[in-house]
Amino acid sequence: MTEPFSFTLHARDGAARRGTIRTAHGEVATPAFMAVGTAGTVKAMQMRDVRETGTDVVLGNTYHLMLRPGAEQVAKLGGLHKFAGWPHTMLTDSGGFQVMSLAKLRKVTEQGVAFQSHIDGSRHMLTPERSMEIQGLLGSDIQMQFDECVSLPNSRDEIDRAMRLSLRWAERSKAAFRGGDGQAVFAIVQGGDQTDLRRESARELVAMNFPGYAIGGLAVGEPQDVMLRVLEDTLPDLPQDRPRYLMGVGTPDDMLQSVARGIDMFDCVMPTRAGRHGLAYTRYGRINLKNARHADDPRPLDPESTCPAARDYSRAYLHHLVRSGEILAMTLLTWSNIAYYQSLMRGAREAIEAGRYADYVADARACWERGDVAP
Amino acid sequence: MTEPFSFTLHARDGAARRGTIRTAHGEVATPAFMAVGTAGTVKAMQMRDVRETGTDVVLGNTYHLMLRPGAEQVAKLGGLHKFAGWPHTMLTDSGGFQVMSLAKLRKVTEQGVAFQSHIDGSRHMLTPERSMEIQGLLGSDIQMQFDECVSLPNSRDEIDRAMRLSLRWAERSKAAFRGGDGQAVFAIVQGGDQTDLRRESARELVAMNFPGYAIGGLAVGEPQDVMLRVLEDTLPDLPQDRPRYLMGVGTPDDMLQSVARGIDMFDCVMPTRAGRHGLAYTRYGRINLKNARHADDPRPLDPESTCPAARDYSRAYLHHLVRSGEILAMTLLTWSNIAYYQSLMRGAREAIEAGRYADYVADARACWERGDVAP
Repeated sequence: MTEPFSFTLHARDGAARRGTIRTAHGEVATPAFMAVGTAGTVKAMQMRDVRETGTDVVLGNTYHLMLRPGAEQVAKLGGLHKFAGWPHTMLTDSGGFQVMSLAKLRKVTEQGVAFQSHIDGSRHMLTPERSMEIQGLLGSDIQMQFDECVSLPNSRDEIDRAMRLSLRWAERSKAAFRGGDGQAVFAIVQGGDQTDLRRESARELVAMNFPGYAIGGLAVGEPQDVMLRVLEDTLPDLPQDRPRYLMGVGTPDDMLQSVARGIDMFDCVMPTRAGRHGLAYTRYGRINLKNARHADDPRPLDPESTCPAARDYSRAYLHHLVRSGEILAMTLLTWSNIAYYQSLMRGAREAIEAGRYADYVADARACWERGDVAP
Repeated sequence: MTEPFSFTLHARDGAARRGTIRTAHGEVATPAFMAVGTAGTVKAMQMRDVRETGTDVVLGNTYHLMLRPGAEQVAKLGGLHKFAGWPHTMLTDSGGFQVMSLAKLRKVTEQGVAFQSHIDGSRHMLTPERSMEIQGLLGSDIQMQFDECVSLPNSRDEIDRAMRLSLRWAERSKAAFRGGDGQAVFAIVQGGDQTDLRRESARELVAMNFPGYAIGGLAVGEPQDVMLRVLEDTLPDLPQDRPRYLMGVGTPDDMLQSVARGIDMFDCVMPTRAGRHGLAYTRYGRINLKNARHADDPRPLDPESTCPAARDYSRAYLHHLVRSGEILAMTLLTWSNIAYYQSLMRGAREAIEAGRYADYVADARACWERGDVAP
């Protein structure tokens, strides 16, 4: 018998939290970085290697998967875990964010969003009920309420309207959720950069009693200080005993700063997308492997890394692969980036347990700033 | 101390041979399929996975590597084995074939070939001496003489001219070869589809006493029966105690037919290139994963394969990845294809040892023809 979905807090250091989420497919050590696996694959990676970086959760995108290969199709093939070869925890988004950023001719109504596929122009409708149905067919462990996310900066009226619509969709999503043991649906706090709207959104959602809460509508163009202020304004209204997920964030520094304010979970395309474009995130900051200064450098990205991609290949080789447009460049840099993100989270977890999180953040920042130019 | 380069014949079945090549970087079980690693990477693959398919040799292309990152650069970084992370046997071609197929504004003289890089238009010169110097800088175990390869069909005069030039270049290549223990330079028999020219080329090269002989200038557009006739005409003139390498070949059937005529080594871009275009080579023949008939198929490419790519992913998932343009499609299909090529060679070696090679070929062909449509 599968145990119920749960979240256990082990330690706190200031507002930073060290916990464990249990789902139908395993444990998730928090703070956690979740690798983005858009269309049933973490781009350029084998799931085996994703797992070995210490990744506990892979995220699937409802929008992409509903269009191709289709949720019913994935269900017929045994669900997303089996389809994609990831037997650990999976989280799916609701499709709300991507339908607004990718789909064509979209129309938002009280009922939901009608849109055309960016792939073939076919017509579709996403509603809270259909989003939850799709996420159920995919079989994800952590499912997200259907919401509307607006870009920033934006008018207060528009932010207010979308926040209230998202609250009504939260209620409908919760009612439509059919998950079993070890599965959960999370609410999404909206409200843009407006403190009072964020707090109202949080309080209303908490009243609905969700097993987890996400902060949506950030990392959509606003400066980091705006994002951190929103977290400081909003997180105190969320219950301590539920996980908090900051959606779509972020840089290594964004993550450390957000953990300091009480965030438990992250997802971001940055390490994977950057890896496909010749950029490495390392202990020494961001390294652009396209740059000619790496052509002669026999050093690996990080000799102390446990990740083969970061440890076993020279920068000169990575530079050559990037310049030559070789697929292996994308694989190795994506791998190394995810491994770095995971090592950063692992370090954060250990630091919180040891009560030295502030020092950990200061050390990480100093190392990024010092950089790592060849001797 | 490194042992000298050697070739040992263990068994014969008709003209088919089962042997072992020893180089400075390990043993090569023959008949062998060598994976093409053009620019220091087997495209879309990690070397670890290439090795696990049973690959003993990776081939590097002198033309590509001399242009980017440059042979001196690779030497400075410790040689191609270290640069590319392949500690086993490496073979390099001479650049002769690719300079004719890829470079711009090439001019062949007695001295060598002047050409412009297809990457940046820079001017270069390849001669037998420079080709051997580059291959020495790369540090490959098996190096190839510089030759001129003409396309087929072609005039007898042109074939004759290129064959005689290649003979003179063979002599200069051998004189310029500076390999140490465990390294060797192979000659390349030319002569197009002209029996007497092939035999003359072979006899002249054998008189120069090379440690191995390649058949070049095939798989350049001629039908399979022409290729097999050339092998039948030429191989009897080559010494039994030296390995024979058929360059750029071929399909699974090409390889089995060529082994039957006494070929020991192959290289071909087919499994890797096909893998990047949605095509799988399997025991059941060639499977086009783009085809819609695979969309619902939960079966792996080959449940009995030892290769994770062939065994652990459904055809429906592979179809989805191919349709979505995902990099993982290229990785998994390339991996599965190399694994199939290696399993075919492994089976050939066992069959030759057991004296049942003709049956093995008949069985393989029957399996390809029977195919594998979903029940």
